[in-house]
Amino acid sequence: MAKELKDLTKRADDYSQWYNDLVIKADLAEQSAVRGCMVIKPYGYAIWEKMQRELDRMFKETGHQNAYFPLLIPKSFLSREAEHVEGFAKECAVVTHHRLKNDPNGNGVIVDPDARLEEELIIRPTSETIIWNTYRNWINSYRDLPILVNQWANVMRWEMRTRMFLRTAEFLWQEGHTAHATSEEAMEEAVRMLNVYADFAEKYMAVPVVKGVKSANERFAGAIETFTIEAMMQDGKALQSGTSHFLGQNFAKAFDVTFMNKENKPEYVWATSWGVSTRLMGALIMTHSDDNGLVLPPNLAPLQVVIVPIYKNSEQLAEISKHVEPIIDELKKMGISVKYDDAENRRPGFKFADYELKGVPVRLAIGARDIENGTVELMRRDTLEKSVHPLEGIAQYISELLADIQNNIYQKALRRREEMTRTVETYDEFKEEIGKGGFILAHWDGTPETEELIKQETKATIRCIPLEGDKTPGKCMVTGKPSAQRVIFARNY
Amino acid sequence: MAKELKDLTKRADDYSQWYNDLVIKADLAEQSAVRGCMVIKPYGYAIWEKMQRELDRMFKETGHQNAYFPLLIPKSFLSREAEHVEGFAKECAVVTHHRLKNDPNGNGVIVDPDARLEEELIIRPTSETIIWNTYRNWINSYRDLPILVNQWANVMRWEMRTRMFLRTAEFLWQEGHTAHATSEEAMEEAVRMLNVYADFAEKYMAVPVVKGVKSANERFAGAIETFTIEAMMQDGKALQSGTSHFLGQNFAKAFDVTFMNKENKPEYVWATSWGVSTRLMGALIMTHSDDNGLVLPPNLAPLQVVIVPIYKNSEQLAEISKHVEPIIDELKKMGISVKYDDAENRRPGFKFADYELKGVPVRLAIGARDIENGTVELMRRDTLEKSVHPLEGIAQYISELLADIQNNIYQKALRRREEMTRTVETYDEFKEEIGKGGFILAHWDGTPETEELIKQETKATIRCIPLEGDKTPGKCMVTGKPSAQRVIFARNY
Repeated sequence: MAKELKDLTKRADDYSQWYNDLVIKADLAEQSAVRGCMVIKPYGYAIWEKMQRELDRMFKETGHQNAYFPLLIPKSFLSREAEHVEGFAKECAVVTHHRLKNDPNGNGVIVDPDARLEEELIIRPTSETIIWNTYRNWINSYRDLPILVNQWANVMRWEMRTRMFLRTAEFLWQEGHTAHATSEEAMEEAVRMLNVYADFAEKYMAVPVVKGVKSANERFAGAIETFTIEAMMQDGKALQSGTSHFLGQNFAKAFDVTFMNKENKPEYVWATSWGVSTRLMGALIMTHSDDNGLVLPPNLAPLQVVIVPIYKNSEQLAEISKHVEPIIDELKKMGISVKYDDAENRRPGFKFADYELKGVPVRLAIGARDIENGTVELMRRDTLEKSVHPLEGIAQYISELLADIQNNIYQKALRRREEMTRTVETYDEFKEEIGKGGFILAHWDGTPETEELIKQETKATIRCIPLEGDKTPGKCMVTGKPSAQRVIFARNY
Repeated sequence: MAKELKDLTKRADDYSQWYNDLVIKADLAEQSAVRGCMVIKPYGYAIWEKMQRELDRMFKETGHQNAYFPLLIPKSFLSREAEHVEGFAKECAVVTHHRLKNDPNGNGVIVDPDARLEEELIIRPTSETIIWNTYRNWINSYRDLPILVNQWANVMRWEMRTRMFLRTAEFLWQEGHTAHATSEEAMEEAVRMLNVYADFAEKYMAVPVVKGVKSANERFAGAIETFTIEAMMQDGKALQSGTSHFLGQNFAKAFDVTFMNKENKPEYVWATSWGVSTRLMGALIMTHSDDNGLVLPPNLAPLQVVIVPIYKNSEQLAEISKHVEPIIDELKKMGISVKYDDAENRRPGFKFADYELKGVPVRLAIGARDIENGTVELMRRDTLEKSVHPLEGIAQYISELLADIQNNIYQKALRRREEMTRTVETYDEFKEEIGKGGFILAHWDGTPETEELIKQETKATIRCIPLEGDKTPGKCMVTGKPSAQRVIFARNY
């Protein structure tokens, strides 16, 4: 299990390779035997579990309940909603048979040609179709609305180019699917969940995000409006981190879901859907980590504090342990997760490097001399600063320090984003600036054609039309036509 | 959302129909558009979530970590372990293509024949193969062992006859997969997890179980030994509720997973796997529920207490609410989940029937007269007994009552099992008794042939060779050959 820290590529040398190295070396995930599918290892999964727990709590606090819908979707369902089929029915895993049999030639097993399905089934790329087909039976009257349901699930999209967490064929996510009696209510829900995602990103992941609306080109297939939170990675590229869709009545019409309104007249139901995925792991890693490894926000770190004793013999260890145990108890009582690593088969220097690689926010090292002095050496992972503190009151100090680290990495990411966000006036200026990375605020005429031209010429896409900030109208940098407000362009993951 | 309680079939009339009715009417689950796959509705899923939370805690307390492995398994993996392929590689969902395209005839989408996979992929029926293929890279030395990993996942087995929760094509489960340096350690782990399952069943589900070993015929495909917990349903049929397998070195050999032992010699790794699934929902429903609906153990009930105000006008409601609010606060502080149902559009009688159907353990009804008297009417769901209590101290009373209900339904199920467990000496006696349902303890010569004969003639299988209880040897009721101890026969789900 030896981790060779020196093998971690430096960000300045190759940011992309640094990311891949880090995912592997920090034991977060690895490629599996199945093309484009990853194994999420225990340490990576522990971070995802902490994300799930907080998100799930936030969903429940906003009135949602969990449920579970089938993995497989009849092929015909995908073509019911015209735009949805274009967006989702193409690169996906298709189940055609339901049985294997022994190879008559003795070479293991083969697909039984007699077990062909009448209708092929698709592994869900997203569940709007199967869920709206179900909602038809759940909804009769306005009294059955709203339905506020979320599902934690695996989904599959047969991506050509995959990268662990950022883009994998199978990924884990949650998908909320809500049904409402009015357009206004559905729109409020879509915005509410956008805000939940933004709060989660900022307060737990310590990742600042821009809330905005997607342009038509980047909209979810089947949505009337797609809201997004966009984060900026250290290399200046954007990462779409969560989306919330106002679906209008599109899926209700496709699956014939109507309700009797208060006037006892039938109406189509209004819908939203919203999701975040294991892609958030990629955002977390790429926002904070450094050339020494992961930097985790204390609010999501599986292990917040590690204590490493420095000792020459078992008497010294016993003496150190005696002083450390009450501190561990105190930290645990404060709800802080802590590990005392007194393993004999790894040297302290090796342990230090390993916990740095794993992003443990606070490390204490304590030796015989410290015991004499009543002190402990502390290192905070975000700044790598070391300092010596009295043992007395150390738990309280750590508690405050964890909050400080959480805030510090958020502020650092926010400053970076602000420094790397520029406003441009002309398309020439845009072309020059976009090459330097970051978010570029520019005027755009609102047409898909102009957006497509810019994408072709610069590889930049409109990340969003921001909901907050400067709303001054102007003229499109490309066509000179009127622009309602500046939008954010960036290259993206 | 009207529930017609009178439509619930009585157990005595048709136990099987009663079960199906109850799953639907209590809003636990429903059939989906995909053959054999169910939708788990929010109320059903809330119970499953409570099960998951407790089990997950118990797994972590015994040193396990969660991880996630791919949904799809290369076809060739299934044939690596000779017995495993026979047990699992037959009725399963096979992915053969990765793309759809527009039908040139304009009829929606069709499978793109150019997107055929080189090797077909199977939706996991269980994950031993893909996990042991992964463990090969995780394990080098004895220092890498044990690996104690669990996964919460969906799996799929193309069952011919399905019943909601009890046997569905797709189901949710957890599967633990551990790797050990010695046979003894692996065996200890398999038994440890059997005990975790038994504790969970008895303490949370209030379902008494018999712990035992499976006969060779009923063993997991690829296991050396399968341990099981067997529960008895109200109709006397057995339900296998959880299994834990000692896999020996079978999967390590099939996937070439070796480690260097302390003497620096290579050895194959020892394995266990263990799982429980949404089938537990079936066990829960069929153990406790009655002709009025669900009876839920307080430890797993999503809602433990409901309070229904009985009022004629809004003044009365306001007065009642004023007295009820402090009780709600007090219950919540005690960690008890409570709902105050003051909805105006449903009559009290309707609410009562609905909460009975849903199995809420304690119901309070409170009217203007009660407020005058300082009392409240309480109904406990397990016995349907009503009683009047002083409002003063009611929260404390409920807290104790919930524990009493939990214990009472466990004891009731235990008495039933004891009453329906009989010992027989002769095969004639066996044939007569097995028709009456329940567990039959009988001597068996230990051969698959005798077991198969009994199954053919009586539809009874050996549920397990009990680990506890009478171990007196005897003679097989069929062949007269020696028997090490009595085993449990039953008809089963």
